[in-house]
Amino acid sequence: MNSTNSLNIGLIGTGRIGVLHAEHLAYRIPNARLVALADVNRAAAEACAAKLNVKQVYDSIDPILSDQGIDAVVICSSTDTHSRLIEEAANAKKHIFCEKPIDYDLKRIDKALQTVAEAKVKLQIGFNRRFDPNFFEVRKKVAEGKIGKPHLLHITSRDPAPPPIAYIKVSGGIFLDMTIHDFDMARYLVGSEVESVYATGGVLIDPEIGKAGDVDTAVIILHFADGAIGVIENSRQAVYGYDQRVEVFGSEGMVLAENNAPNRTLLSNREGVHAPLPLYFFLERYTDSFIAEMKTFVDAVIHDKPCPVTGDDARVPVVMGLAAKRSLQEQRKVNLSEIS
Amino acid sequence: MNSTNSLNIGLIGTGRIGVLHAEHLAYRIPNARLVALADVNRAAAEACAAKLNVKQVYDSIDPILSDQGIDAVVICSSTDTHSRLIEEAANAKKHIFCEKPIDYDLKRIDKALQTVAEAKVKLQIGFNRRFDPNFFEVRKKVAEGKIGKPHLLHITSRDPAPPPIAYIKVSGGIFLDMTIHDFDMARYLVGSEVESVYATGGVLIDPEIGKAGDVDTAVIILHFADGAIGVIENSRQAVYGYDQRVEVFGSEGMVLAENNAPNRTLLSNREGVHAPLPLYFFLERYTDSFIAEMKTFVDAVIHDKPCPVTGDDARVPVVMGLAAKRSLQEQRKVNLSEIS
Amino acid sequence: MNSTNSLNIGLIGTGRIGVLHAEHLAYRIPNARLVALADVNRAAAEACAAKLNVKQVYDSIDPILSDQGIDAVVICSSTDTHSRLIEEAANAKKHIFCEKPIDYDLKRIDKALQTVAEAKVKLQIGFNRRFDPNFFEVRKKVAEGKIGKPHLLHITSRDPAPPPIAYIKVSGGIFLDMTIHDFDMARYLVGSEVESVYATGGVLIDPEIGKAGDVDTAVIILHFADGAIGVIENSRQAVYGYDQRVEVFGSEGMVLAENNAPNRTLLSNREGVHAPLPLYFFLERYTDSFIAEMKTFVDAVIHDKPCPVTGDDARVPVVMGLAAKRSLQEQRKVNLSEIS
Amino acid sequence: MNSTNSLNIGLIGTGRIGVLHAEHLAYRIPNARLVALADVNRAAAEACAAKLNVKQVYDSIDPILSDQGIDAVVICSSTDTHSRLIEEAANAKKHIFCEKPIDYDLKRIDKALQTVAEAKVKLQIGFNRRFDPNFFEVRKKVAEGKIGKPHLLHITSRDPAPPPIAYIKVSGGIFLDMTIHDFDMARYLVGSEVESVYATGGVLIDPEIGKAGDVDTAVIILHFADGAIGVIENSRQAVYGYDQRVEVFGSEGMVLAENNAPNRTLLSNREGVHAPLPLYFFLERYTDSFIAEMKTFVDAVIHDKPCPVTGDDARVPVVMGLAAKRSLQEQRKVNLSEIS
Repeated sequence: MNSTNSLNIGLIGTGRIGVLHAEHLAYRIPNARLVALADVNRAAAEACAAKLNVKQVYDSIDPILSDQGIDAVVICSSTDTHSRLIEEAANAKKHIFCEKPIDYDLKRIDKALQTVAEAKVKLQIGFNRRFDPNFFEVRKKVAEGKIGKPHLLHITSRDPAPPPIAYIKVSGGIFLDMTIHDFDMARYLVGSEVESVYATGGVLIDPEIGKAGDVDTAVIILHFADGAIGVIENSRQAVYGYDQRVEVFGSEGMVLAENNAPNRTLLSNREGVHAPLPLYFFLERYTDSFIAEMKTFVDAVIHDKPCPVTGDDARVPVVMGLAAKRSLQEQRKVNLSEIS
Repeated sequence: MNSTNSLNIGLIGTGRIGVLHAEHLAYRIPNARLVALADVNRAAAEACAAKLNVKQVYDSIDPILSDQGIDAVVICSSTDTHSRLIEEAANAKKHIFCEKPIDYDLKRIDKALQTVAEAKVKLQIGFNRRFDPNFFEVRKKVAEGKIGKPHLLHITSRDPAPPPIAYIKVSGGIFLDMTIHDFDMARYLVGSEVESVYATGGVLIDPEIGKAGDVDTAVIILHFADGAIGVIENSRQAVYGYDQRVEVFGSEGMVLAENNAPNRTLLSNREGVHAPLPLYFFLERYTDSFIAEMKTFVDAVIHDKPCPVTGDDARVPVVMGLAAKRSLQEQRKVNLSEIS
Repeated sequence: MNSTNSLNIGLIGTGRIGVLHAEHLAYRIPNARLVALADVNRAAAEACAAKLNVKQVYDSIDPILSDQGIDAVVICSSTDTHSRLIEEAANAKKHIFCEKPIDYDLKRIDKALQTVAEAKVKLQIGFNRRFDPNFFEVRKKVAEGKIGKPHLLHITSRDPAPPPIAYIKVSGGIFLDMTIHDFDMARYLVGSEVESVYATGGVLIDPEIGKAGDVDTAVIILHFADGAIGVIENSRQAVYGYDQRVEVFGSEGMVLAENNAPNRTLLSNREGVHAPLPLYFFLERYTDSFIAEMKTFVDAVIHDKPCPVTGDDARVPVVMGLAAKRSLQEQRKVNLSEIS
Repeated sequence: MNSTNSLNIGLIGTGRIGVLHAEHLAYRIPNARLVALADVNRAAAEACAAKLNVKQVYDSIDPILSDQGIDAVVICSSTDTHSRLIEEAANAKKHIFCEKPIDYDLKRIDKALQTVAEAKVKLQIGFNRRFDPNFFEVRKKVAEGKIGKPHLLHITSRDPAPPPIAYIKVSGGIFLDMTIHDFDMARYLVGSEVESVYATGGVLIDPEIGKAGDVDTAVIILHFADGAIGVIENSRQAVYGYDQRVEVFGSEGMVLAENNAPNRTLLSNREGVHAPLPLYFFLERYTDSFIAEMKTFVDAVIHDKPCPVTGDDARVPVVMGLAAKRSLQEQRKVNLSEIS
């Protein structure tokens, strides 16, 4: 880290999520300094830099890695580049924040994590939902024992609209693309490891998704090491918006989180009592969590504290996703231990 | 039916649920006349009769069946007597309201239903939850197409406390004893038949339940003929009371039903905002539905209308329960067609 | 009281509220026996009697009062007859349940209460809302000290639609006709006497109401002896249905009661999240409270317990109503002590 | 304005609210540049400047006003300085954002507004609640005619704890210090002017507040020009936190806003169902509104658009506050026209 009490950061990948993180680093996180941007699409990086008043713009990560004034990188490029960029950054002794997932290939994940470990740099993975005020509070209540021993977990996770078919074809499938966040939530909320996965699903929204070899509606059962049973419900399209609710039921009670809406108004008229829809999608719903996770990362690096989302936290949801894929194909419960 | 515009009824079995129905017939359903009570425990029948001012009291069904002034019977005796009493009542040309289930043996169910069909008497099964104002409204919205085509069903069904171990041992297991109501709800709410069942569960509440060969916590996945996927979550013990919620999600929206509480008050103090617990158990939560189902039965007989819960509605949940048992044992998805 | 453990009752006035009480007495209150009905419109009484299987039907109260087998009367006739009927019933040593108000003339009220006191019969006034599960719970929390010392009371009380203009002309005005229930609630909830009233209002719904000398929208401020300040908001027309909410705020917290709806369902679609309207009007909302108040009266007579709504409880809201009328006219705060 | 597309701002007064605005200008409003800070307590200004990386720090407004590179000032100093600083800033041709109120003396307000008008600079007053997402949505629904013609307004406005007695003594009293925000809300939400005020109150929380000549609990009735009637309920101490709810009832419906809480979780245990307390006080509850109002001001100056909270909007609530004070003293309804 540089000598002052702030962190100089280079960000790679100025797509949607990259721009989001860049804005937060520029305006919302006082002790972060966004000093460089890189994107293979240089024009995109330049547009973002102009808006945020960032001086250094590149079309590759190399100048950032060789810049001794830069302490950390934020990797927001496409998933297929993550493991390579992590390794390069680690070798350049940069601390790393990387969007999920590291890779869909466990060997590549392990290699990247190994490189990080050897370089002794910090690595945090972008499972932002852990920083959502709702889910954070649910986890807090569970961890404090307020519901006793967890027995049942329920996660409702529905997107407002499916991504383009072209995206779905390269997404790795719903379990690795969408459910992976819920897999992380499951481990986080219950505080126990998952031992097996049973997945089922169907193509109920768009036949094109089926032709692409994926499902658009899924239900997954998780068995936890401590005996708890979890259920995840996914849909690629909830017409009323982003549906993100969780519930943990235990021996002494239950804690749940409802959806967030843009306001708390109620309109009563001849037809009924009407409340606003949930916040539309993850950019709206999880704004606070994106800021909070980045603040945590910046703080962890500056004060040499452990990152709250570790390499193992990055790996396990991929294992769960691969297990879910196999379970769907083979119509049986799959133990995580089956996935190498 | 007798010549007047009311229905003379004999009730068999004056245990908890029998007394409940008896009170409703005596005080809450104007065109029903509760004229006779029978119980193998004659003292129980007499106590109930005294309270409700019923003149005829017996220790068997026979005098009721031979009484030409009695139009219908309400069977609330123990489950093992249901199929036999249905047959005897049908042969005596009495219309029949019978508590669920008819039997756990499909052959005996089929024989009873055959007898009813031949006798051309009416038969209604006590799946009272269909008459709960919440679930009725959910079904109404689904049937009206308000949520489009159903994709996902979720039923949360948790009892406030487990029954005695002695009861559990003869209960037929959680799926036939407790989940059977949820199986009925699933078919009712979605309006499509279930094709397969995947059941899992655990013993998380009381090891004695495990020793009795049962589970106390269960998750069941249902596949419907129309492609929808259903999830049922059961627990024998929710310390906060009877948890009875449903949710149907579809192509055009979602409808759900929250728990009912005894009042709509909120207390705010230094510790938080506090709402009352849900109504404690089925007697409190489903009072209105018990009355409504009996009114419907009485009305169906008097005006010769079809009963809303048919013999087939009685049979299918038992098939689902048997499939769930097999699924739990064999750890695989079981098609209902596998159950003879 | 007759020798058995039940109460023989004659009911006078078979209009809307009379029929309601009659049905409850006939079907919902086991230890009450509705044995006689009277109405100046004999046909109305006969129709009600036929429906409820009541044998004695009259066109005046006299045969009921002279019937030694009748223990109590329920007076549901028009308000202008209440004080006279109370006196006649008291003189005949019948216990009395009388709909509110006794009269709009305090001298006549006092005379009636004096007669009741001398006859040593029981008198209960039909302020049914005290028996509503919501308001009962609010009062309970206040009485238990859960909110500390009360500081502010808020009552929202809006009808779904105004009564006919003909009714309004003879109603005594909104304060004596509609707000009187809220005046009773105010004293009941706070547990302190009101010392002064400030009333304001307007004609915002129907100019005909103004022509009849009344207002259709009103706000009333109450000062309680213990220092608390209350606000009542009235409207003759809430298009979304009967709006009946209360809130008591105190030194240690707040307790409020929301409206009751027919079910707890929520529909989410592209337009929003939709909940059902409140129960439409007092017959729907206050069913349970009507039954509970009558059970309490029957129980008080049978077991010689004090009636929970006394003669004084009948008188004070009329004083408050008269004070509110004067306040509206004179545009100033009126002390109750100004009203003789 | 300077030649670029951003606004150079000097902020005066780095107390609590000043620091808040300074942070927003520094980090949350991209087209604002906070270039100077001033406070009579120079150390306070320097501390804030160090934290926010602001170069120019002063102990008076003068250097800011004489700096041609500064386009606008944000006045957050104590209320007694507002009118003078507004005039000085206007004379220096700086656009002005000023915290409420301008003054408690109408003549001084008028003189300041006159100066602003002559200088043709923009003036926006810090009635931030208009920018709260809840109240904004309520106003939107009212303005769209969703509830028809407004009949009744209800504002519940309670602070979590009273300010120090020393503050109360110089605060101008509860109506000018606390209710003034609610007076602004009342005009904003209903969209009609207030014609008269009736105020009452008491000392229920702390006798010291009474000794200081103020009340700590108040109820105010407002009569609007369009016939609507409003009620404001104030308390200096709600132990459960900041209670900020509004409700507008009209001929076609009602719209209300509930409190905001830090999350949407519910904990159910043996004792009840528990929700989190409302956000604690205005800094937590109104964060978004503080940012939104400042963005609007910056945007109005840059693009020469009208400011949404005008000089008249600043004056009227003071008139209402003075009327309320007189009403409380004289125990009568006071027309705003009585206040010069």
